[in-house]
Amino acid sequence: MNIFYTPPSQIQVGFAEITGQEATHASRVMRAREGDPLTVVDGKGGWYEGVIRRIIGKSIRLEIQNEQKIPVPQPELVLGMGIIKKRDRLEFAVEKAVELGASRICLFRGDHTIKQNVRMDRLESIALSAMKQSLRAWLPEISLFHSFEELLEKHKNAAYLAAHEKVNPADANFDLKAISKDKLLLLIGPEGGFSDDEIQTVKEKGGKLVSLGQHRLRSETAMVVFLSRFAG
Amino acid sequence: MNIFYTPPSQIQVGFAEITGQEATHASRVMRAREGDPLTVVDGKGGWYEGVIRRIIGKSIRLEIQNEQKIPVPQPELVLGMGIIKKRDRLEFAVEKAVELGASRICLFRGDHTIKQNVRMDRLESIALSAMKQSLRAWLPEISLFHSFEELLEKHKNAAYLAAHEKVNPADANFDLKAISKDKLLLLIGPEGGFSDDEIQTVKEKGGKLVSLGQHRLRSETAMVVFLSRFAG
Repeated sequence: MNIFYTPPSQIQVGFAEITGQEATHASRVMRAREGDPLTVVDGKGGWYEGVIRRIIGKSIRLEIQNEQKIPVPQPELVLGMGIIKKRDRLEFAVEKAVELGASRICLFRGDHTIKQNVRMDRLESIALSAMKQSLRAWLPEISLFHSFEELLEKHKNAAYLAAHEKVNPADANFDLKAISKDKLLLLIGPEGGFSDDEIQTVKEKGGKLVSLGQHRLRSETAMVVFLSRFAG
Repeated sequence: MNIFYTPPSQIQVGFAEITGQEATHASRVMRAREGDPLTVVDGKGGWYEGVIRRIIGKSIRLEIQNEQKIPVPQPELVLGMGIIKKRDRLEFAVEKAVELGASRICLFRGDHTIKQNVRMDRLESIALSAMKQSLRAWLPEISLFHSFEELLEKHKNAAYLAAHEKVNPADANFDLKAISKDKLLLLIGPEGGFSDDEIQTVKEKGGKLVSLGQHRLRSETAMVVFLSRFAG
């Protein structure tokens, strides 16, 4: 099964317009024709099934026959992840976070982040593909934070959970599933992990430290393991 | 912390020889010198800490001062994974399987495998790096099976668990942690998933089908999620 994307602004009552690359992909690569069924999502929970009524140039007009509003997965999982220096690993991390149902992806420059430029346009394109691949209707927003504190402040209504390899087992002895908040901020450090200051900040703000096992994991692996403990 | 690799044949009583790329990496990149401490693993559970006594050309002689035999993680996790067509995804999968503690990685050509050549030498090199990165002492053997049946036959003393997206919830209603076998064969299909015949074979041989959640996951994502349910 394939699904396509169109932004909410291109959904009208009873009809959806698919344009640009998505329309090209549908008509040229998938060889969709007038009269064919097609499913589109709007990245905001809207799931529309319909029939193609018109293909003109790079635009497809879909008559919507069935629509659903998919709720945001609960608990809401916000991923806060240190910027990874290696581009392929960062891109992989974003893809997997979307597949596993993160509602937002917040990249931050941590104390141990090795400076690098982040190609946001590429990450957004990867997130879009991953949403369609995993048949999801929510497209996580990707944002960049210039400090760890700024990230925590932005999501201060969430429960903070930080994966930390040097965690004291006494600090990690609780049931992840028992956290009652409906929004979790899952924190993963960059390659070098969190600094002592960052860990201290998490603790001071009432956050919890989580151990992901006794072995050292790369950032993107830790992220997948962490997120998959909640993903349904 | 960095660890290095040398095969068991290069470990003698009290001494280890590190040669080739590993020695070059230690002496040129990490600038190890005579008198420096160094840790090597042999990929078979041996963990050796010692002091460099001699560096001649591309060979490092380590005097072993402390050695441990790390047991194979229990339960033993054998990964049986359909060959993924995209090389970067397959390589990523191998890296993550090692990080998460698979004892063996068995790639198979399934009914839905899209034919492609597998660069075993590259995969072995990736596995070696991942072992060192995750500070593990066991190097999983990577092998290639030309059919799914051949793979099951090879590991017939293991409990079979197959991740399947079309799983009937009634088939998946059991506690993974309650499986008493000390060796598990975790089965993941290629991009197209398992064929009906393959699923039938798993069932006939007493294997169980496992659901990894309601969303479609790429093969390598499913593998990480599956393995992380057991990894410690």
